[in-house]
Amino acid sequence: MLFFTQCFGAVLDLIHLRFQHYKAKRVFSAAGQLVCVVNPTHSLKYAPTRCAAAQTSTEQGVLPPCHHHEAVHDPQLVPCTCPLFSCPWEGHLEVVVSHLRQTHRINILQGAEIVFLATDMHLPAPTDWIIMHSCLGHQFLLVLRKQEKYEGHPQFFATMMLIGTPTQADNFTYRLELNRNQRRLKWEATPRSVLECVDSVISDGDCLVLNTSLAQLFSDNGSLAIGIAITTSKVHNAEDEM
Amino acid sequence: MLFFTQCFGAVLDLIHLRFQHYKAKRVFSAAGQLVCVVNPTHSLKYAPTRCAAAQTSTEQGVLPPCHHHEAVHDPQLVPCTCPLFSCPWEGHLEVVVSHLRQTHRINILQGAEIVFLATDMHLPAPTDWIIMHSCLGHQFLLVLRKQEKYEGHPQFFATMMLIGTPTQADNFTYRLELNRNQRRLKWEATPRSVLECVDSVISDGDCLVLNTSLAQLFSDNGSLAIGIAITTSKVHNAEDEM
Repeated sequence: MLFFTQCFGAVLDLIHLRFQHYKAKRVFSAAGQLVCVVNPTHSLKYAPTRCAAAQTSTEQGVLPPCHHHEAVHDPQLVPCTCPLFSCPWEGHLEVVVSHLRQTHRINILQGAEIVFLATDMHLPAPTDWIIMHSCLGHQFLLVLRKQEKYEGHPQFFATMMLIGTPTQADNFTYRLELNRNQRRLKWEATPRSVLECVDSVISDGDCLVLNTSLAQLFSDNGSLAIGIAITTSKVHNAEDEM
Repeated sequence: MLFFTQCFGAVLDLIHLRFQHYKAKRVFSAAGQLVCVVNPTHSLKYAPTRCAAAQTSTEQGVLPPCHHHEAVHDPQLVPCTCPLFSCPWEGHLEVVVSHLRQTHRINILQGAEIVFLATDMHLPAPTDWIIMHSCLGHQFLLVLRKQEKYEGHPQFFATMMLIGTPTQADNFTYRLELNRNQRRLKWEATPRSVLECVDSVISDGDCLVLNTSLAQLFSDNGSLAIGIAITTSKVHNAEDEM
C-alpha cells in the first residue's frame, strides 16, 4: 500500500513539473528559449559568515582563507562556491564545475539565452535556487536567494557569477528579465567572479532585488520565470553608445 | 551682511543645480534627452490614509470620497492627486494639471523621452520627487517616493500615473531606466490612472522598487537620474511578440 502511495506521489510530482515547464514555455515561447525547472536547494546548514573574509577579491584565482577553511594553505585552492552549503571541499578553479555537478547535483545548461523557472517561491527564507549555465566558452552560476536581510521581511536576490577570475568576469554582461502581465523588469550588470563570495554580493545589494510583493506579481502559481542572457561586454558597450 | 550671506547662498545653490544638470547631461548625453532637475517636495502634512477608500478604481473619472473628502458629493469631482499634500482642493479631471502647476508648482515637461534627476536622495523618509510629463497628447505624473514601508528601512518607489481614466491609461506603456557603472535596471509597465491613489500603487509594490543600497549604486553624489520613456501599448505588445 505504501509503495502505491509513493508511486502516486511521484507521478503527481512529475505532472506538476511538466505543467510548470509548459507554463514557462508558454510565457517565453516566442523566443524559443530553453526552459529549466529549478527546485529549491535543501541547504545542509546555513553558513552566513562563510566568506566574511572574502571582501577583498583577488586576481590570483583564490579566496582568502574563510571561516571554516582556516586550514587552507595552498593559495591555488578554492573553497566550494556552492551557496548555503557548508561544504568542506576545496579545489582548483578548473574543477569547481565538476564538484558542483557531482557533489551538489547542480544542473548545467547550454545556450546563450535560457529561462530559469524557480519553483516553490513560498518556502521560508533562507532558500536558494541554483543552476550552472555554460555559454561563450565559460561556465556561470546563477543564484536566486530568498533571504531576510531585515528580520520578518524576506526578499529575493538574483545574481550571476562567473566560474573564473574577476578579470575574466569583466568581459561579460548578464541580463536577468522578468516579464508577466504587461510588466517587465530587467537587470543588466557585469557578472562577479565566484572568487568574490555570493554572500557579499547580496549584502551589498549589487544584484536584482525583489520585494515579496513584486516577486508575487511576477510569479505564476508559486513559480518565478527568469529569462537569462549573457553577452560579451563589447555588445553592452555598443548598446550604451546608441 | 545678512543680505550678502543670502545672496552668496543663492549663488551656491544655482552653481550646485547647474553642476547636477551637467552631470545628468553627461550620463544621458548620447541620447540627447531633456534633463530635468527635480528637488524634493516639502510636504505640508503627511496624509497616509488619504486614499484608503480608493482601492476600488472607477471608470467614471472619480475617486470614491476619501478620508478628508467626506463632503464630496458631486461624482464628477476629483480630489487633489498631488501625493503627500493634504490639499483640500477638488475639481474635474481636466483641471488637475493646471491645479498641480499653479498651486503645487509642479513642473511640466514635453517630449517622449526625458531624464528625471532627483536631488538630495539622502533626505529622510517620507520624501517625494514629482514632475508632470506631457507626451502623446496626454499628461503623466511621475512620482519617486522615499518611504519606510518597514520601519527603519527606507526604500525608493517610482511610478508613473496618467492624468486620465484607467481606460485611457491602458493605452500606454512607460519605462523607467537607471544606468550607471555598467549596471542597468529597467522597469516597464502600464501606467495607473491618478484616480487610483499613488499610495495604493506603492503599498502593492507594483512599481520600480529600490533598496537604499541599490539606490546608492545608481546615484551620483546624492542625485538619482531616471530615464523616462512613454510609448503607446501597441509598441509594447509588438515587442512582446518578438
